[in-house]
Amino acid sequence: MAEQHRLAQTPEPPYYAVIFTAVRTEGENGYLKMADRMVELAQTMPGYLGIESVRDGAGAGITVSYWKSEDDIRHWKRNAEHVVAQETGKSLWYSEYTVRVAKVERAYGW
Amino acid sequence: MAEQHRLAQTPEPPYYAVIFTAVRTEGENGYLKMADRMVELAQTMPGYLGIESVRDGAGAGITVSYWKSEDDIRHWKRNAEHVVAQETGKSLWYSEYTVRVAKVERAYGW
Repeated sequence: MAEQHRLAQTPEPPYYAVIFTAVRTEGENGYLKMADRMVELAQTMPGYLGIESVRDGAGAGITVSYWKSEDDIRHWKRNAEHVVAQETGKSLWYSEYTVRVAKVERAYGW
Repeated sequence: MAEQHRLAQTPEPPYYAVIFTAVRTEGENGYLKMADRMVELAQTMPGYLGIESVRDGAGAGITVSYWKSEDDIRHWKRNAEHVVAQETGKSLWYSEYTVRVAKVERAYGW
């Protein structure tokens, strides 16, 4: 999970989730530094609610970030530094990925 | 990711996602066998569209399963074998977890 906490402490639904699932290419190529920076940067963006991210040793990763609104997600997607990371991800870091934008309707756990 | 494929091959949105994020307790305690069985069982359930699951070496895990409808998710939640797994998860395998049910509104990637 992200450095600051284990599970994201999100408010009562509804809110939005960006589910990013990806498979890495071989080689580090500056990936970890970028990934840490994107977590740090996301936290400064309007509407940010939290992030959960897990990577395994075989190159699979899931990152779910939580946002107040779809507009906040669009704003984050267009952030200049994030755009560079997205483009480098496509060309260098990921062999395949999927991004899903979803509205969280209910949540429970402990 | 799940054994069968790396990324889930889901249809065009809308569909539903169950985002399960958890932190494991110490010890194996039959967890991996259960986790594999739940993936296998989910695939036999009505409305199942796919699953993506990543666990790291530090006990953090994210599993996202995809479903045609909320009714399909409720049906899966109430499956008898799944209920036992949920209860054992609470009492034995997980120190904390969150389940979020979300409607996927758009998706892209490659």
